[in-house]
Amino acid sequence: MTNITQPMLETIEKELQQQVARLNQPRTKQFHEMLTYHMGWTGEGAGPLATGKRIRPLITLLSVSSAFDKKEGSENNTASNWLHAKSAAAAIELIHNFSLVHDDIQDNSDLRRGRRTVWVKWGAPMAINVGDAMFVIANQSILDLIEHYPADMVVKASRILNDCCLDLTRGQYLDMSYEERNDLSIEDYWPMIGGKTSALLSACTHIGSLLGYANEERQESYRLFGYHLGLAFQVQDDILGIWGDEALTGKSAASDLVEGKNSLPVLFALGKNGKFANRWKQGPITVDEVGVAAALLEDEGGKDFAEKISEVETQKALNYLKQADPQGEAGEAMLELANMLLKRKQ
Amino acid sequence: MTNITQPMLETIEKELQQQVARLNQPRTKQFHEMLTYHMGWTGEGAGPLATGKRIRPLITLLSVSSAFDKKEGSENNTASNWLHAKSAAAAIELIHNFSLVHDDIQDNSDLRRGRRTVWVKWGAPMAINVGDAMFVIANQSILDLIEHYPADMVVKASRILNDCCLDLTRGQYLDMSYEERNDLSIEDYWPMIGGKTSALLSACTHIGSLLGYANEERQESYRLFGYHLGLAFQVQDDILGIWGDEALTGKSAASDLVEGKNSLPVLFALGKNGKFANRWKQGPITVDEVGVAAALLEDEGGKDFAEKISEVETQKALNYLKQADPQGEAGEAMLELANMLLKRKQ
Repeated sequence: MTNITQPMLETIEKELQQQVARLNQPRTKQFHEMLTYHMGWTGEGAGPLATGKRIRPLITLLSVSSAFDKKEGSENNTASNWLHAKSAAAAIELIHNFSLVHDDIQDNSDLRRGRRTVWVKWGAPMAINVGDAMFVIANQSILDLIEHYPADMVVKASRILNDCCLDLTRGQYLDMSYEERNDLSIEDYWPMIGGKTSALLSACTHIGSLLGYANEERQESYRLFGYHLGLAFQVQDDILGIWGDEALTGKSAASDLVEGKNSLPVLFALGKNGKFANRWKQGPITVDEVGVAAALLEDEGGKDFAEKISEVETQKALNYLKQADPQGEAGEAMLELANMLLKRKQ
Repeated sequence: MTNITQPMLETIEKELQQQVARLNQPRTKQFHEMLTYHMGWTGEGAGPLATGKRIRPLITLLSVSSAFDKKEGSENNTASNWLHAKSAAAAIELIHNFSLVHDDIQDNSDLRRGRRTVWVKWGAPMAINVGDAMFVIANQSILDLIEHYPADMVVKASRILNDCCLDLTRGQYLDMSYEERNDLSIEDYWPMIGGKTSALLSACTHIGSLLGYANEERQESYRLFGYHLGLAFQVQDDILGIWGDEALTGKSAASDLVEGKNSLPVLFALGKNGKFANRWKQGPITVDEVGVAAALLEDEGGKDFAEKISEVETQKALNYLKQADPQGEAGEAMLELANMLLKRKQ
């Protein structure tokens, strides 16, 4: 990481804490604590492992700064050209975390980043309300841009954020509805993942470049970079979820096959309707079967297909990033981050 | 009702349908149907009884129109001076309905307006997502104001709406946390009800008067009218929930005493720590006890106290309405509506 990311990450964390502190009032201390626990700041296991990496708000600020340098008439790479956008970065991270809190209830997940989930600690009714509050604060955060940006830009940023949120609910709906379907194929993958993963990443780069005063054309390149980055990242995650070390070795419960996840390799094989599809339709893969099922899926071409798609999406992402022409130190940091996420050597 | 309310109600319903239709796409038809069912337009029992009265969006548009007439230089009472604000009215109603969908999960309620609740029909995970989508669409709706209003007004309206939403989550938190407490008194009532009921009504009149181009001072009068209208209305609702016909007669399950609701009369009596408080702390009031418990609560002054408070809040609401000086046909309709809600003869 270059020198620019550290001050960005520190600013993001401070801004998130200030935004969430809206609930830090005499009668709602415990409510506030539920949010600070989920954000990784308080409670058992609090710390860097619990907060997550804040990749999304970081990409947002890197988009601001790397776009800004090309603003006509602006001074080059001032240290603080991204500082005014901090509440937008916080908004993105709060949206991400709102969806995680609700996801954990919906998926009945006990653990998140190795810690007990909000609904396990305080019950589902409270956890629903915690997610709702995070969503509200995300909206308040993005509207706080009014302190530093013209009102029409604030409205535009807020619209991009909420359009992305509707995509999130669409993706979530599809994901849940797939659990009851037996006729899925590869075509069902993209609308789900487009909503669940790519929408938010494309909002990061879109809003970031807007707040970096990029013109419409460059904003579109930034947006598409984020979108394909999200797709490539998700497909890689799907591959690791089946053939990664953690999935195949001791911790087999970590395998997406056991979880019944409708990942890209699985949907590819379901469309083929071969041996893997037959087994999949007969009910959950057990921990003991994981190795055999993964091998079968690989034999039927699920892994090759996913790897090919991942490569195509990675290439698209990097092409759009080139087209976006990110400048200065932030531009270098963005390319570095993209390569890291896409697990490529530079 | 005067002639102005009918076209407003028709416009509200149409605008709500258009906003919700964002989900009416090939892959999300069923998701869309979950929202149209809750809104009362489709499914068993669809119709006027299922939609609710749309009081909040109506108050919003009446605030716009009754404020507008005093805008300097504007023509008097044009038929459409409220039309441009329709997406704000829809936003308010969507916020109300988002909170109902999540409330029903949190309270484990099977029925809403006589129909099965969303979570009963489609499960809690889907219902959480339905509420989330409604909240997103509410934000998209208020941002649609950009088609007719200057951007700085859109940002202001959107901030008022989201500030109100945070109050809603605060009120919801307090309500849920009270279930586990045994030391409640009258002081715990106002912060809960201020969030749960008054915040949204004050957002209606505040946003409405803003969009009617009222100056800051008048906006504040409108806002306080909505706030105290909400308090007065809630206290009346609390009285009817214990001593109303439905609560005391046959349908005793409808009594707030059986439901264990921390209403104003109950919190008053808990603060007194007399016979009623002793009984309340021993566990749920049964259906058979309802008459005796209600009589005991009345003896200890719970009813008188609530009626006095209701009268005080009603008077405050009407004073602020007078101060807001609502104009024209919309102004008359607003007074009529307030009197109806507050069950007063004109």
